[in-house]
Amino acid sequence: MEKKEQKIMVAVDQSEESMHALSWCLSNLISDTNKKKLLLLHVKPPPAICSFDTAGYVFSPEVIAAMEKYSMELANSVMDKAEAICRNLNAADRVIEMGDAKNVICSTVQKLDADTLVMGSHGYGFFKRTLLGSVSDHCAKHAKCPVIIVKQP
Amino acid sequence: MEKKEQKIMVAVDQSEESMHALSWCLSNLISDTNKKKLLLLHVKPPPAICSFDTAGYVFSPEVIAAMEKYSMELANSVMDKAEAICRNLNAADRVIEMGDAKNVICSTVQKLDADTLVMGSHGYGFFKRTLLGSVSDHCAKHAKCPVIIVKQP
Repeated sequence: MEKKEQKIMVAVDQSEESMHALSWCLSNLISDTNKKKLLLLHVKPPPAICSFDTAGYVFSPEVIAAMEKYSMELANSVMDKAEAICRNLNAADRVIEMGDAKNVICSTVQKLDADTLVMGSHGYGFFKRTLLGSVSDHCAKHAKCPVIIVKQP
Repeated sequence: MEKKEQKIMVAVDQSEESMHALSWCLSNLISDTNKKKLLLLHVKPPPAICSFDTAGYVFSPEVIAAMEKYSMELANSVMDKAEAICRNLNAADRVIEMGDAKNVICSTVQKLDADTLVMGSHGYGFFKRTLLGSVSDHCAKHAKCPVIIVKQP
């Protein structure tokens, strides 16, 4: 029986750890002999449209545009870095989404029908992680496919 | 360069989910062409030596012996079930340990120098999981190797 092509999604961000997770995936899950498609997912933070009028914190359109430009540049630099790691591979699809990483990763797994999700264990700073729980915890519970969590050694 | 044999440890218990995780591992990580050793780990609960004298709850030696016998039978039945799933595989090593599952799984990963840990996402009842957090959460954070969490579809 011809097996369908397996889709492996790797969530990448600016962390060293996510690049390590990608390398692990290439060494351990993807070989020349098996049919596996690699999807590189990067989730940009949502745009900062928080105008607290009473406190006087309003971001000007210029500031918002600058932040969005920065976020897009960051996404591209993450993807370039990830693709450099995949240089021996024929092709990896880039997927860039926007929103709250933990929810967007899970919904993208479903939308693109990924068979396996690979990610680092952190991906956020210490405080956010402590307060909100880690993105990988959430995905391990809620993603509709097996989740591989790779820590930086 | 000759690569060293990779050790994949699968944590198994009486849950359907852990057997599903094992099946996933066999289909996705282990092939005839790669050098991978499978370790089946089952963690028995610690013996019930809790004698609350004041409240009068003392387990008799007979009750303790009966509980230990049950726990050993359970461990063997889990291992038999797991080995039946692995029937196409040359050999899987049985490892039976005792103690708090989440700590014992992490320490056994280190002791046996496993390269990858595979487990289901639950492995405990709803209440214990809600109170203590899941075993897989703990292992994903603390095990010294990549952790693959496979949910029941």
